[in-house]
Amino acid sequence: MSEPPFTPPPPTRPFEPTVVIVGVGLIGGSLAAALKARSVARTVIGVGRDIARIGAAREAGLIDEATTDIRTVVDRADLIVFCTPVDRVPIDVLQLASTQNGDLIANGPGLPLMTDVGSVKGPICNELASVSRFIGSHPIAGSHRQGFEAADANLFEGRTCVITPIPTSNESSIDRLERFWRAVGMTTVRMSPAAHDDSLAMTSHLPHVVAAALAATLSEENRRLTGSGFRDTTRVAEGDPKLWTGILMQNSEFVVQGIDRIIQQLSAYRAALESHEPVAVQKLLLEGQFSRAMLDRIQRGID
Amino acid sequence: MSEPPFTPPPPTRPFEPTVVIVGVGLIGGSLAAALKARSVARTVIGVGRDIARIGAAREAGLIDEATTDIRTVVDRADLIVFCTPVDRVPIDVLQLASTQNGDLIANGPGLPLMTDVGSVKGPICNELASVSRFIGSHPIAGSHRQGFEAADANLFEGRTCVITPIPTSNESSIDRLERFWRAVGMTTVRMSPAAHDDSLAMTSHLPHVVAAALAATLSEENRRLTGSGFRDTTRVAEGDPKLWTGILMQNSEFVVQGIDRIIQQLSAYRAALESHEPVAVQKLLLEGQFSRAMLDRIQRGID
Repeated sequence: MSEPPFTPPPPTRPFEPTVVIVGVGLIGGSLAAALKARSVARTVIGVGRDIARIGAAREAGLIDEATTDIRTVVDRADLIVFCTPVDRVPIDVLQLASTQNGDLIANGPGLPLMTDVGSVKGPICNELASVSRFIGSHPIAGSHRQGFEAADANLFEGRTCVITPIPTSNESSIDRLERFWRAVGMTTVRMSPAAHDDSLAMTSHLPHVVAAALAATLSEENRRLTGSGFRDTTRVAEGDPKLWTGILMQNSEFVVQGIDRIIQQLSAYRAALESHEPVAVQKLLLEGQFSRAMLDRIQRGID
Repeated sequence: MSEPPFTPPPPTRPFEPTVVIVGVGLIGGSLAAALKARSVARTVIGVGRDIARIGAAREAGLIDEATTDIRTVVDRADLIVFCTPVDRVPIDVLQLASTQNGDLIANGPGLPLMTDVGSVKGPICNELASVSRFIGSHPIAGSHRQGFEAADANLFEGRTCVITPIPTSNESSIDRLERFWRAVGMTTVRMSPAAHDDSLAMTSHLPHVVAAALAATLSEENRRLTGSGFRDTTRVAEGDPKLWTGILMQNSEFVVQGIDRIIQQLSAYRAALESHEPVAVQKLLLEGQFSRAMLDRIQRGID
């Protein structure tokens, strides 16, 4: 029997009094809900591009204040979490961290701690390497649903958050960020941006490509002949194509490697089937079943 | 607005007084439960190879009688449903339809109507072409769970059952089989065994291969970095490898064609990513999303 996982003591709350969330969609909205539900923040300010949408999120009670101009609230922020698409994050952070002339503001105490929730970390952390107040995060939690209307205060509960500091990142800031994500129920792990992207290509980006590719092979006539298996296997293909194009483009090298690996695996099935080798087919299926079963053990907290 | 689907009037119950189910696992057990719950049969007799297992199914109240020897109950059967693995069905049916010397018993009224629930129909219907009392069925319903303990009387509710008659099949027997499956809540459709196998390769067998192949690409270190997307996409890989080897081997030609199609689709993603063409990537993702969305419309009964 292995030891039970370490449960950190509850933090003295609220420990990030004012949190600014940029982009209040499913993730941003769920984070806002979790921060309020767990008293991690006293005030949650939402920033959106569309005044009507961000206003509706405030009306719904998800956030305390709504604005379209982050500059008007940055001074009051203890922490800013960018929940914008991966290809927007560096632009948004650099705009905030620069003067009107485009000069980078000194990374002093004037700028709050900043992080994001993007599913690809290399390009973001690379582009923001000079902004020491920024440290990347990736809370691995989500849904194929979209918009703050689908927000769920328990979305992060029991899930893993990867923090991707770079060598110049401040240790106490990393630590603070870890406590922040743990406070919404997550387990945290530190990885380099590249190691994160390599892993996530295999655990998230490749599955998305595979699900969407499989969905596209279904003909109109065959729709009525699908069962729960087809539905489960293609569920994530419902995700927003625009958002996922950004993710796949930012992580294209690792995703291409992943595609090569699954094509290799599929080719092994093809060869075994074509040469009528049931033993080879069963061996391949056993490999998949074993791997999937080990995943369930983790989810149930057995190891 | 299209017309609401035709709802057949409830049958005069029970209209198959005695049903024999050979193989009382998840499907056979669920069928037994559905037949009792809906009063389609008065008596359900379960046949199993393992006396302890089939006895336990009777103890659990799923079946009324249990035996390991089908020959002792065949005379009382109105309908026999073979819920054994696809590579067992022809052997089981031929044993029943033959004398001790191996001569085929005349297809007269002495032999009850027989069907199966196998996921591949070509080989079965071909091998049993001379047994006119046999007509293939495939109720498209299931679960990755196994054994009669997971039986669910509502497993078939709202799902599609494909009936695969051959040119020599008796029309009134086909009709009777259709009414049988409708009585447990299914919509029925007639297809040739080959057309069924072509379709099911794409809607069920390929998704299984893809899920198992994807599960196998996951390294041990990456297990903790999976989210609900990976879990959904690989769920069916939990299915019994032995059972699925039989299915894939029996339908290998169509499955190989399916593998070729998904590899083609994956290669399109690979090319678009490698040449940094976001427009091409998004077009591919939109194709998958559209196909998946149309599937949801069917499930919700919109069209």
